[in-house]
Amino acid sequence: MSMNNTELEALCKRAKAASYRLLSLSSEEKNNVLIKAAELLVSEAKDIIKANEKDIENAHAKGMSDALTDRLRLDEKRIEAMAEGLRQVAGLPDPLNEDEELYERPNGLKIYKVRVPLGVIGIIYESRPNVTADAFALTFKAGNAVILKGGSDAINSNSAICDILKKALSECGTEPSAVELIRSTDRETTKAFMQMREYVDVLIPRGSGRLIKSVLENSRIPVIETGAGNCHIYLDEKADEDTAVSVTVNAKTQRLGTCNTAESLVVHRAVLDTVFPKVAAALREKGVTLYEDEEALKAFPDAEPATDEDFYTEYLDLKMSVKTVSDVDEAISHINSHSTHHSEAIITADEAVAEKFLRDVDSACVYHNVSTRFTDGFEFGFGAEIGISTQKLHARGPMGLKALTSCKYRIKGNGQVRG
Amino acid sequence: MSMNNTELEALCKRAKAASYRLLSLSSEEKNNVLIKAAELLVSEAKDIIKANEKDIENAHAKGMSDALTDRLRLDEKRIEAMAEGLRQVAGLPDPLNEDEELYERPNGLKIYKVRVPLGVIGIIYESRPNVTADAFALTFKAGNAVILKGGSDAINSNSAICDILKKALSECGTEPSAVELIRSTDRETTKAFMQMREYVDVLIPRGSGRLIKSVLENSRIPVIETGAGNCHIYLDEKADEDTAVSVTVNAKTQRLGTCNTAESLVVHRAVLDTVFPKVAAALREKGVTLYEDEEALKAFPDAEPATDEDFYTEYLDLKMSVKTVSDVDEAISHINSHSTHHSEAIITADEAVAEKFLRDVDSACVYHNVSTRFTDGFEFGFGAEIGISTQKLHARGPMGLKALTSCKYRIKGNGQVRG
Repeated sequence: MSMNNTELEALCKRAKAASYRLLSLSSEEKNNVLIKAAELLVSEAKDIIKANEKDIENAHAKGMSDALTDRLRLDEKRIEAMAEGLRQVAGLPDPLNEDEELYERPNGLKIYKVRVPLGVIGIIYESRPNVTADAFALTFKAGNAVILKGGSDAINSNSAICDILKKALSECGTEPSAVELIRSTDRETTKAFMQMREYVDVLIPRGSGRLIKSVLENSRIPVIETGAGNCHIYLDEKADEDTAVSVTVNAKTQRLGTCNTAESLVVHRAVLDTVFPKVAAALREKGVTLYEDEEALKAFPDAEPATDEDFYTEYLDLKMSVKTVSDVDEAISHINSHSTHHSEAIITADEAVAEKFLRDVDSACVYHNVSTRFTDGFEFGFGAEIGISTQKLHARGPMGLKALTSCKYRIKGNGQVRG
Repeated sequence: MSMNNTELEALCKRAKAASYRLLSLSSEEKNNVLIKAAELLVSEAKDIIKANEKDIENAHAKGMSDALTDRLRLDEKRIEAMAEGLRQVAGLPDPLNEDEELYERPNGLKIYKVRVPLGVIGIIYESRPNVTADAFALTFKAGNAVILKGGSDAINSNSAICDILKKALSECGTEPSAVELIRSTDRETTKAFMQMREYVDVLIPRGSGRLIKSVLENSRIPVIETGAGNCHIYLDEKADEDTAVSVTVNAKTQRLGTCNTAESLVVHRAVLDTVFPKVAAALREKGVTLYEDEEALKAFPDAEPATDEDFYTEYLDLKMSVKTVSDVDEAISHINSHSTHHSEAIITADEAVAEKFLRDVDSACVYHNVSTRFTDGFEFGFGAEIGISTQKLHARGPMGLKALTSCKYRIKGNGQVRG
């Protein structure tokens, strides 16, 4: 399906108008919508599965791999998991009720800083259709309207889910335009969408590095950069061997395809012949191929030589680069110039060196003697997560509900004028 | 002077490297630099004035208006004011020491959320050379390196000021590259600068609406949109006449050229023949020309007819548009679709109507019975201000030192891995 610019603008306008009307909703009204949507997802699961079957057929016809087709597939269990996600978000505290501040000025002005929704949030994502329900739940709970642009592979599933979300909104007497799905699958529509700064307050891309790069390059709407993780583990001079082995193996192999998976090992020269070979052997045992610089190759030769590009690569695979350094300063400098500023860890028993590393590594999450795999909204106790921000503006690291809000000032007086 | 891309990239790299080294500075060390810079500005005022004279000569040769030439001019008094600005920023609390949070997780992880600098901030601004010192003071106090791109009219003055700031940094044993000035005056360099996302964390344009629009359109670096203010005053059905007159006259005429100056009057039909003519007459007395819709013209005919464009115009002049509405909902909807989301005010004695207006008007600062002229970091008690954000991402309204920071997570453990 294609969509012309007038239709697209009308859709964005509807979402904007809805976002204004959402301002008057109470927490209870919002939670009722989420609970109703969960009910309807389960009671109308058959319609979703029917729509999903079309997507699966199209995927087979296109020769999509089994792994990707599996990510696309919905069954009753997966739909129940989506519904449970909605119920959980309903149970979280309302971020709009948090941290109001009052400044009273000598001239009698009362300045209230209050938390407000961002307004309209655009989410551009790839194949998993469960994002449709998840993204709606989080953005709506924070008081926003959301415009979804999912991958073309999941268009039928996404449409069916979006129809159910709209039905839940209507049945609760709320704006069905609080969720809009761009049902056009051509790239021109996506590009046109990214120009709608007048109606869309922020754009969050969720998916591959290529998707995120394309959004950053084409969007005129402010973007929150998420996701890509070229994460490092630094084995310091004073690294404890057992910690080094268990943390590195966990960070690299516990789940290969996630953004907080470690991709590069940085080794202090002093442990190149002691701790490093133990870590390398444990990684080899798990099937990891190491891409090593010259010095590391001498210390542990069961590996491939690293190219410069390896040190910039997020493998998402059984592969890890290895770089030798002469001290923590060189480690920090190597990480700052090669990482995607997501998550990095130091393994050391030296508190002073650890403090330096935690301070000077320019990433959202920096760990001391802990696996990078913990960078996650649930693990941090935030209750939910719309993504991991790798930029410094607005939100950094795991983004919970508060990252989907802004603030404003309400000022009360009795005729004050400026002299 | 022109600058090729290699030179520009080298400059950005120097600033990035400096920003990492600034992470180890104490508050005292930063304040010492600011105080030293204030000293040097005063003791080397003659050099600045000599450079400024070149700019003034060039301005005369170009036929610049007297008003603009005056904005460009520096004398000992203005230089002392710049120095005083630096001393004041030295006296403000360090934003990096604020609001650290600790989350302790059941698995023993200690997650510290700490405030950190943004890194490298780019500031693109127009003619006033005092911005060079002001922007350095604020960004540096928050721990950032800054890259300045001033207007070509002030290039000699800006260069002289930047040299002094660098000297202050050097004399205090700090990185002179904590401040860099792009001394090239051609537009291609500015465009190339806006692509340097790898080195620059955020770009803040300060100046005319045209400048800001151009930055928004061309930047690949995240931008904080500041400044433009098409601000509204709404005279409600229950507006008190004296408050209506004094607040509107103050908001429109107290200082014409500022972004928080009111540009549009929205009038409830019920007060079109009562309160409105009094307000209009008081504005006429101050020399304001009103651009009115048809109904308002009947009620107060000493005016011009408004075009649709008038309602989108930030006049920065003795002009004000007037729109008639039938209730507060229409007023809110008119404001939300025409304003730049900066500052708006309602004049009413009706608390319930005021609450609705304060909640539903989608602007950074919304006032009840107060002049919009108070939107200002100093008036809000923030001690300093880098600009007024009119976007919702990262910062909104007057931006103090905290708006020039980000956060990061430092996580300490003892070998935790994810299961």
